[in-house]
Amino acid sequence: MNKKMIRYIVGSIIMLEAVFLMLPALTAVIYQELHCILVFLGSAVFCLAAGALLRGKKPENTTIFSAEGYVSVAFCWVALSLCGAIPLYFSGSFPNPVDALFEIVSGFTTTGSSVLLDVESVHRAVLIWRSFSHWVGGMGVLVFMLALLPMGGASSMHLMRAESPGPSVGKLVPKVRSTAKILYEIYSFLTIVLMILLVISGCPVFDSINLAFATAGTGGFAVLNSSAADYNAATQWILTIFMILFGVNFNVYFLFYVKKWKDGLRCEEARAYLGIILGSVALISFNIYHLVRNVELTVRQAAFQVASIITTTGFGSADFDQWPEFSKCIMVLLMFIGACAGSTGGGIKVSRICIMAKSVMKEVAYIMHPRNIRKIRFEGKAVEHEVQRSINVFMISYLGIFVASVLLISLDNLDGITNFTAVAATLNNIGPGLSLVGPTCNFSMYSNFAKLVLVFDMLAGRLEIFPMLVPAVYLLRKKQLR
Amino acid sequence: MNKKMIRYIVGSIIMLEAVFLMLPALTAVIYQELHCILVFLGSAVFCLAAGALLRGKKPENTTIFSAEGYVSVAFCWVALSLCGAIPLYFSGSFPNPVDALFEIVSGFTTTGSSVLLDVESVHRAVLIWRSFSHWVGGMGVLVFMLALLPMGGASSMHLMRAESPGPSVGKLVPKVRSTAKILYEIYSFLTIVLMILLVISGCPVFDSINLAFATAGTGGFAVLNSSAADYNAATQWILTIFMILFGVNFNVYFLFYVKKWKDGLRCEEARAYLGIILGSVALISFNIYHLVRNVELTVRQAAFQVASIITTTGFGSADFDQWPEFSKCIMVLLMFIGACAGSTGGGIKVSRICIMAKSVMKEVAYIMHPRNIRKIRFEGKAVEHEVQRSINVFMISYLGIFVASVLLISLDNLDGITNFTAVAATLNNIGPGLSLVGPTCNFSMYSNFAKLVLVFDMLAGRLEIFPMLVPAVYLLRKKQLR
Repeated sequence: MNKKMIRYIVGSIIMLEAVFLMLPALTAVIYQELHCILVFLGSAVFCLAAGALLRGKKPENTTIFSAEGYVSVAFCWVALSLCGAIPLYFSGSFPNPVDALFEIVSGFTTTGSSVLLDVESVHRAVLIWRSFSHWVGGMGVLVFMLALLPMGGASSMHLMRAESPGPSVGKLVPKVRSTAKILYEIYSFLTIVLMILLVISGCPVFDSINLAFATAGTGGFAVLNSSAADYNAATQWILTIFMILFGVNFNVYFLFYVKKWKDGLRCEEARAYLGIILGSVALISFNIYHLVRNVELTVRQAAFQVASIITTTGFGSADFDQWPEFSKCIMVLLMFIGACAGSTGGGIKVSRICIMAKSVMKEVAYIMHPRNIRKIRFEGKAVEHEVQRSINVFMISYLGIFVASVLLISLDNLDGITNFTAVAATLNNIGPGLSLVGPTCNFSMYSNFAKLVLVFDMLAGRLEIFPMLVPAVYLLRKKQLR
Repeated sequence: MNKKMIRYIVGSIIMLEAVFLMLPALTAVIYQELHCILVFLGSAVFCLAAGALLRGKKPENTTIFSAEGYVSVAFCWVALSLCGAIPLYFSGSFPNPVDALFEIVSGFTTTGSSVLLDVESVHRAVLIWRSFSHWVGGMGVLVFMLALLPMGGASSMHLMRAESPGPSVGKLVPKVRSTAKILYEIYSFLTIVLMILLVISGCPVFDSINLAFATAGTGGFAVLNSSAADYNAATQWILTIFMILFGVNFNVYFLFYVKKWKDGLRCEEARAYLGIILGSVALISFNIYHLVRNVELTVRQAAFQVASIITTTGFGSADFDQWPEFSKCIMVLLMFIGACAGSTGGGIKVSRICIMAKSVMKEVAYIMHPRNIRKIRFEGKAVEHEVQRSINVFMISYLGIFVASVLLISLDNLDGITNFTAVAATLNNIGPGLSLVGPTCNFSMYSNFAKLVLVFDMLAGRLEIFPMLVPAVYLLRKKQLR
């Protein structure tokens, strides 16, 4: 293990966080929230100092391998969360430090589950820090750093692979640094377009900025207690469309960016994703029409909620906990499916679902014609055995963590639907679940222990599990060796 | 497809069912249930005639391959269920034919979910037919036929493999027919020992016979409305021990049978299985002690319920729906784990869980040391890639069927816990779930459509999914070809 390099990377990230903290500090200045100015500037100074101390000089050997990539990413995200929780705690809105940690992890992992009972009573600087953490976490903070920092090609690839979601992470262009830059260019462009459209649609400027950050990162923190229910129809439709856009594989936008329009439109994952959305909206509209009795409103509510859940954003414009069981079932199903790989969304990812479905078809074909062995094809290419195996192992560990988490938080003795969907909502980085953690409720009633379990789930969900397992196994083995 | 041979096999099974129907007919004679004598004898005659008609002459070409094996097994089980439902319907206890089908499928698949509101009001001939269907379905009716019928070695192996549970099905001795005979010898021996012990413990003779059949098949149909709650402590402990014994891989008993004691005791799956049972009993006892306040009773209730659920039997001696959430969670978890492969129990099977856990460990080790590639080992042997792939594909189709079933039965608009555990209880061949399908309730409130979905789940669970998928895909493809 190249420990010096891991420290260097983690230190750099903490220093970078000091820069991020300037946005809420600026907000505090604009809205004259004096206490918040001090808190956010103070936190930034702390991050600068702590980061510089940890970082030290750049190590001579900057080469890292797969294991270091995973460990660095895990430590970076934990450090980022701990430091990001400091201003939340000292802002006074989160008297319990575990709550502050829960909230910021929910932010960076783009989950959007909150422990706040009354969002509207919170300082604007705090609100923008929550929303901005979604934006930073969405595309990946290490990817952001890679766009700035020059680093050996193979080493940075290990970092990118460990942080980015999806069964197979590729570079768009030969250089990792250029890939990271292009990704952030597309990401920023879409975010700004959304911000402008929201303002035009009649949404207040402060709300528009927050909503744009939270939508881009598929996060889901809102600035009103009613989430997105009180905005007008135009604003809700714009949010719906952009939630869906941010759930698309960014490869598609890259292909558009280099003007390969046809290749972009041919993306198998994006088509499956849009197909699932259309199918779900149709079924739910049909199922809930008798509750709403207005075609536009029915479709809008169904489309908004479906887009919000499948992209794992988590905004709400209607309380789907009140829907019939069939619609609720579809929503829970969408929670697990999640968005496309290579997007800012969470969940199992559409590409994994497609490949798994194809592997079942292949097995049945194999039973019927044992001599006819063909490889599974996805996106026009044969799926390598390696990718299939990693998907299967991902699913198994995903289920393992899911089950263990439900078991652990059940010690709080809340009802089964609450526990099941609380873990589903955090492990898939969505936000709301059903019952006591439904769209109109929050996570404040859980014990600190349960909150920490859910914090782990949010991180494991965002980093797709293995970065969270590798350090644990490493530490365990080290103990055994002693 | 060798259609003649498939017809021959299905016809033979239906004729065999006529023989099985003699047991309830005899019971009706003993207890002087005149109407039942007519119904069961009539059904037997119908089975004989229909079976003979379908069977025809023995085809010249008796060779079948993997695909025919799966199709035959699926058709046999459907035919067996349809014919077995006839006497239930005409007995008058099941006025709705779908209910009669649900009940007998629940019997043959050893599920034990019932639609009866009052078991005690039902004729004894009907009760023994329900219990006996567990016994017949437990070890496999085709395995039974293979013990009687001489058939080509490879062909009979395809049948046995398609009907028997577990990731890899092996012959105990070189000949399939001898393997089938040995399995039924061990099975019958254990059943008779249990019957005798139950009578000695003070359980009525009729109850003992029924309980022994239902325990041996890990079924769960009881003859009292209170299931097993009203029997004395000795009876309950005997049932607990034998439920656990029938959930052990029968390879272990075979090794004992040929006096390879050490090899039998070394079985990794059986050890993991016993470990899970002990751990669960300990955790639950600790968690429910405050409700019972008596050490023996606490441990007995915990052990009985754990044994009943992990072996997928489904008897109840306490209403675990009233337990704290943590204990309920463990129970739901045990529903999915299930018993050992090669036992009469259902569920995912302990060996699959072990191999999946090992594959995650291997993946983490691989990330840390990419050059160090080792095969997973189970039961002292390397696990072939083939077996791992089939486990993964099994898990994916299992999850797919699970999700689709919950979605379909949610159209009845019952609560989520009911639907989730109803599918868990039927797909894993257990019996009771939680909430409205809890240990003190039954499945009668579901619509006919939902009942048919659950019937499919019971069959898919018993036959481990693929036999139910292959005929469907075959029929679909045939349509496409036209």
